[in-house]
Formats: sequence, C-alpha cells, structure tokens
Amino acid sequence: MTSRAYDGPADLVITDCTALVPDQDGQPGFVEDAGIVVRDGAIAEVTGSAHAAAVPAGERIDAQGRIAMPGLINCHTHAGMAALRGIAEDLPIEQWFNERIWPVESRLTDEDVAWGTRLACAEMIRAGVTCFADHYFAMDKVAEVVSECGLRADLGWAHFSSQGPEAAARSLDFALAARGTAGGRISTSLAPHAPYTVDDADLARIAELAARHGLRVHLHAAENRDQTEASLARHGRTPIEVLRDTGLLDVDVLIAHGTGIVERDLPVLAAAGGRVAVATAPRGYLKFGWDTTPVAQLAELGIPVGLATDGAASNNTLDVWESMTLTALVQKSVRRDPTWLTARQALHHATVQSARAVGLGDAIGELAPGRRADIILVDLTGPHTLPVHDLASTLVHSARSSDVTTTIVDGRILMHDRVLRTLDLPRITEALTRRLPDLVAYEPGERIQTYEG
Amino acid sequence: MTSRAYDGPADLVITDCTALVPDQDGQPGFVEDAGIVVRDGAIAEVTGSAHAAAVPAGERIDAQGRIAMPGLINCHTHAGMAALRGIAEDLPIEQWFNERIWPVESRLTDEDVAWGTRLACAEMIRAGVTCFADHYFAMDKVAEVVSECGLRADLGWAHFSSQGPEAAARSLDFALAARGTAGGRISTSLAPHAPYTVDDADLARIAELAARHGLRVHLHAAENRDQTEASLARHGRTPIEVLRDTGLLDVDVLIAHGTGIVERDLPVLAAAGGRVAVATAPRGYLKFGWDTTPVAQLAELGIPVGLATDGAASNNTLDVWESMTLTALVQKSVRRDPTWLTARQALHHATVQSARAVGLGDAIGELAPGRRADIILVDLTGPHTLPVHDLASTLVHSARSSDVTTTIVDGRILMHDRVLRTLDLPRITEALTRRLPDLVAYEPGERIQTYEG
Repeated sequence: MTSRAYDGPADLVITDCTALVPDQDGQPGFVEDAGIVVRDGAIAEVTGSAHAAAVPAGERIDAQGRIAMPGLINCHTHAGMAALRGIAEDLPIEQWFNERIWPVESRLTDEDVAWGTRLACAEMIRAGVTCFADHYFAMDKVAEVVSECGLRADLGWAHFSSQGPEAAARSLDFALAARGTAGGRISTSLAPHAPYTVDDADLARIAELAARHGLRVHLHAAENRDQTEASLARHGRTPIEVLRDTGLLDVDVLIAHGTGIVERDLPVLAAAGGRVAVATAPRGYLKFGWDTTPVAQLAELGIPVGLATDGAASNNTLDVWESMTLTALVQKSVRRDPTWLTARQALHHATVQSARAVGLGDAIGELAPGRRADIILVDLTGPHTLPVHDLASTLVHSARSSDVTTTIVDGRILMHDRVLRTLDLPRITEALTRRLPDLVAYEPGERIQTYEG
Repeated sequence: MTSRAYDGPADLVITDCTALVPDQDGQPGFVEDAGIVVRDGAIAEVTGSAHAAAVPAGERIDAQGRIAMPGLINCHTHAGMAALRGIAEDLPIEQWFNERIWPVESRLTDEDVAWGTRLACAEMIRAGVTCFADHYFAMDKVAEVVSECGLRADLGWAHFSSQGPEAAARSLDFALAARGTAGGRISTSLAPHAPYTVDDADLARIAELAARHGLRVHLHAAENRDQTEASLARHGRTPIEVLRDTGLLDVDVLIAHGTGIVERDLPVLAAAGGRVAVATAPRGYLKFGWDTTPVAQLAELGIPVGLATDGAASNNTLDVWESMTLTALVQKSVRRDPTWLTARQALHHATVQSARAVGLGDAIGELAPGRRADIILVDLTGPHTLPVHDLASTLVHSARSSDVTTTIVDGRILMHDRVLRTLDLPRITEALTRRLPDLVAYEPGERIQTYEG
C-alpha cells in the first residue's frame, strides 16, 4: 500500500471501480472503491481508489459504475474463420465440414487468414477478450496480426497426417520460432488436428517433441459422442485413450470440446502425468445437437475447463462472455440442477480456469500484483444490469460483452469507450468484402480433408 | 408506389435500409435499398429507398448499414419484477418462489411496481422490444407507465383464487376499463395465475367472462413437467386438460411456458375452439433445469409460439433477442437436429408468430402497409456481425439486442442511436436504489402464495 512515487509515474491508473478479485477461498469476490496501478505492463497494485488516485500516472481511467475484471480468454478458436461467419448454417456436422467448410478452406490464402484474423481480433477486443488460443493455418500471418493488434495469444499451427511430415515440421518450427515474440505476448503450442485426422505414430512423435522442447499441445479430441463411438468401433479405444497411449497425456495438453468424454475416460484423465485442460464452447454444441462438455466430472478431477468459442464459422460469434453465460445455463440444464453451476463458478471458469487452460495460470486470470495487466472494464449502469443485488449474477446472467467499455492488454488500452485503438475496422471490412465472393463460391469435390466423425 | 405528396408530409421516412419483409411463401425475407414511409402511426409504404427519399417528411432516418424489422414482442413477462433482478440465484424453483420471490412480492407497493416497470420498459426499448404482454399486479400503474413511455402492451391483472372474488373482479374491471387506452396501444387480457393457484370454478367463470366480453386470457399453464405430474396426481388431468374442461380452450388463450405439455395434450390443443398460443422463455428453462417448450409439436398443430422472457427475477434479462437466439439453439439441441429450427424460422417466431400470440396478428409483426409502425433498426456494421453471408443467420446467431440502434412504436421514436427519449433512467435508478434495501430484507414466513408445483 506504499505510494511508490519513487518509481516514477505509473503507466496507467484505474480509479473508482469495483474489482473482481479472489476472496479468502480463492473464489471470485468483489472489492468496491478499488484502484489499480499498472507499471511495465503488469499490475503493480490493486488498492483503494483514493490511494490509486494519488499515484502519478501517464494515463488515468475513472471507472465509476464499472467492474474491473481479468480480460476474458478464448481457450479454443480458429480466428481466421471469422471470414466464413454464417456461410454454412442449419446443417449437420458432416455436411457442414465436407460440403462447405473444407472446400472453402482449401481456397483460403495466407492473406485471407490474416484479414479474417484481424476481423476476429477486432471482435474479440470489443467483446472483452484479451487472450486467445488459436488453432489454424498460416500462423506466421496470425502472429503478425497479434503483434500489430496488441492481444495476447497462444498459437498452434494445425496439421493433419494427410499433409505429410512437412506439415508437422512446420508446426514445430513455428512453435519454436514464435514463442515469446510480440513482446512476450505470444506463446505457442503444437497443434495436431485431432486423433481421427492425425495417426497414432504422428501423435506419439508430437508428444515426444512437446516433452523435449517444453511445448504444450493443443488439439481437438472427443469432440462429440459420435467421434468417441467411431473411435471405439475403429480400434477399441476412445479418443482420450488414444491420447494416453500416444503419450499426449504425459505432456501439457489442451483438449478442445471433449463433449464425447465418457465414463471410462475419467480414470484415464485422472492418471494423466501432464497438465490436462479442456476448452468448452457450449454454443456450438447446442447448434449441432451434441452433448456438452462434462464440466462437473472434470471439476471433480481438478481439470480446469476454460471457456471458448470455437471458430465463427460454426459458432457465429467469438463472444466468450456468451460462452460464460451459456456454460452456467447449459450445465444447470443438462444436470437438471439449478444450484450448479453457480454464477461465481462461471466467473471462476472465465478467469482462473481459462488462464490455466492456456498455460498462463501464473501470468493472467487474476487481478493481483505481478500479473500481466490484462484488464477489462464492464459498465453496469445500463437498465438491463440494474438493480445489482448480486454482482456475480449480474455479470453472468444480465451483462453482455457489449457492456465492456475498455479492453487492456499488458497495460496497453486496445479499446476505450468501445472505440478500437489498434485495428482499422473499415479497412478490414473493405478487404474482406473484396475477397469474399471468390472465396465462398461453391465447387463440389474440393476439400482440405474429409470429416468422418 | 405513388409518392402520395397530396397527403402532405409523412410523419417519418426511413431510407437506405435492408427491410425484413415476408417472401412469397410468407417466410422472412430481405429487401435491400428499402425505404419505409410512416403516416399517422402506421406504415404507409415499404418501398424503394430512392422513392422514400423523395417523400416529404417531418422526421427522417438514414438507416445505412442497418436492417429494418418489426419490433420484438415480449409475449410473457412480469415487468415490475425487474426491480427484483438477481435477488434469488442458483436456487430450485420451490425455494426461489417460497423463500425469496413471494415473500418480497408481498411487500411490493404499487409505486414499487411502477418503478420496476419503468426500469423494465427502459430495458426493453433499448433491446428493440416494442410490445410486451404483462401479467402482474397493480396494472393500473403499469398502464400509466405504458402510456408515458410509448410502448405497446397487452396487460392482464394477475389473481389467485386465494385472494377471493374481489381479485377476479378487479382483473375484469381493469381489462374492460384499460383496453384501447394509451392511444390504442394498450390491449388487455384476463389473467388468472395458473390452474394450480386458481380453482376450476374460477377458471370456468373466467372463460365465460372472456367469451362474453371478447377478452383474451393470459395465464401460466403446464409450466414444467413437475406441474403436469402434480396435476395428474391430484385429479387425473393435465393442466391443459383442466383448461379444456373449464372452457379456456374455447376462448383466445395465451399459455405461458407449456414446457410440461405432454403427448396426450396435443389432441386436446388441436381440438381447441379458441385461438390458442404459447409463449416460450427458454433462458429460464435452462436455468431451472426444465424441459423446454415443445415448439416442433406445437408448430405441427399450427399453434403460434411467441417469444418471451418471463420476469427479470427468474430470467435476469428482458432480452427477447436472446430468447430468439436461444429458441433456435435449444430446439436444435433437444431434438438433436441441427437442421431445425432454422434462423428463418426463429425470425418467424419473433415476428409473425409473436404478434399472433399476443392477439395482434393483424396489427403488428410485419412491415407492411396498414400495419402499426412498430419498427426497429439493427446495426450490422460491428465486427461481430461481419461479414454477412446470410442475413437471417447474422440476425439470429451473431447480432445482439445491443445492436438495435432505434426503436419506434406507432411511428414515434422511443430510442435513437441508443439514447432513450421517453424514460429518465437516472431518475428510475435513483428511485429504485432508495427503495430496494427495505424491499429485499428477508423475513421468513411472509409470502403472497405457496408454490407446490
């Protein structure tokens, strides 16, 4: 609580907010009349507003009527697919992939991915997302976009066995070259597509490389019940058992979706030697008529479940706030238990568990001294968030991503009063509008891969 | 397509929008470069933008980049409960009603209901809602608020048999006195609470009164599966069969929720002599762990299903846009069929079917000459709604209520550029903030009624 005037002015001081900080049990709690002091991209102090007001600063934000909370983390997305938002609707997954998405993706250029990613980053910054775990192609371009827009990201260059060993090598080269770039905001993962598109030998090699180079692995697995059943029919093992048998559960691994995780997978996950996390994107599961991620069972195993949106081509939005709300609602629904998952638990998934899921549990996900200054301000003065009887439920069940007024990463303001500071939306729109007609023209037969579940 | 200059200037002209209008099959379609001419509170023309631009007008809106569509209709709510948003979270329905809601409601004054309703109206206008079907107490006060804020509403004064015959008489007196007031914007319904709180004799009397006075009936019925089972256990009939036996299916009736409608109810509903409609509020069903409204089965019977939010105390929001999105998502999920309900079908529920549900199928729900000018403008230039490949899916799956820039009822602009014109939100907030501590203080034992399912 010292003023630290001897350090010179702070970079940024936020005053007069209510801060979402852990309570004595490590669960989300709220402190009123709070102030936040940011130095060198990190949170220096979370303190009283009056104290913070006295700290000299290069930039100040009066956050009256607003909540300060850790920025949201999109734990699994394909940002570039924002360009394909809405191209394939109301279809079953096989048709969605084989007739629409993979034919179009086979035509995507690196520049298309870059513009799609810019659009995605604009959307995410406006929605209070400060970090995203991206799993896609042309990741060198994606890294450039991350560098220019100021977001934090964990990047993995996706590959299939069908693309040959060069694709796997490129994924590794990228992971080694890009990690720690963009002023430390980029971390990297190895990114095999999924156990049904990457063979066991390749998965085992990836596990070995991950261990050798201290890399995490980010992949799709047990995306839905059909995949699990197809896997069992094919070789008698579930996708999670394939991860175990190929060594991927002995390294740090982020599993996207996991709605097809079944009872017999739970002891397998419990016995994992590496840090396992799951990313849940509940909107798409509703839309495709799938089960949802077994959040309660994973919670019992201590496995963090981070929030995600998947790509906008399936999910239509990159709105992690909506994923938080839907996680609370859908978990109550599938368990037929209105007392679980609570609003506070949903906030825990959105903050601490999401940070752990992307391997940044010590760096982000909490407003605390020493953490990176990834902060959002949320306006609670709109009629739809009044009155406030319980802040956690106001945030999870009444507030929307559109109530985020300010998005800050590493102490840098990327959006303030809903105005983007680092991306030029009209230019992005113009580039995509020019390119799209060619991109989405449908030519049967073309495709990057075949989906068989 | 005449310019009608001889009629003198139009009241309002909207140019350069894309208009949601029925296609040749009566399904939602879109017309680009459209203009809308409004005279005397009604839509005079939906025409080309250039043509509309030439019409002299008192007020003009350039709606470039925006969709013009019929205002949303909240087919079942308890607006005054907005004051209680978030007071009882993560609880089972019995505890929610008996320990929290009904004790607090027993302390609500008429003034509390008025302020809560003002807050609700502010929220709904900001969310693009132009009409709401309200089922609550102190409806004379609610009618005053509707009159002052400019919304359209169907109002029903709720009552229980336990309140004695005076309560039923007051509900009828109000329905007869208030209908057609507020410049014709108020219609009324009789509003018995539900078959489990209003006895059969009272329900039969209400059906008779409805027939005699040409009034509609708006009530809760078959809210969830437990209610249906309790009803069967009590007297061997489902709540829908009780409606039939008391004559309520021979008048025009709006049934709230109906998630407990079972197979044997379908022929009963099919045989109804009156116009039956159902209001669905899917968010609350997820939250309480209920089934959802059987929309597909009702569609097969030709029963309109309107969108609703219920009260904010259970639903947390009055965001009908979210109800539209969730209806699409949840229907796909419960039927495990990604091809149904489509985005276009969701828009049909939000417009035509919701208008029918509140008994205003000829007056609102469509942008067409002669209809009341209840119009909203929706901005589709945000990064989260770009690019547009398919307008219906952009609206249902990417856009949000916060993208509504303008809300118009009877040709009067109630919100423009997200600024409310008829309600003073700071004054509403101040009044509620002063009153709330007393209101929510918990005193065990007090309650307005007992919920037994």
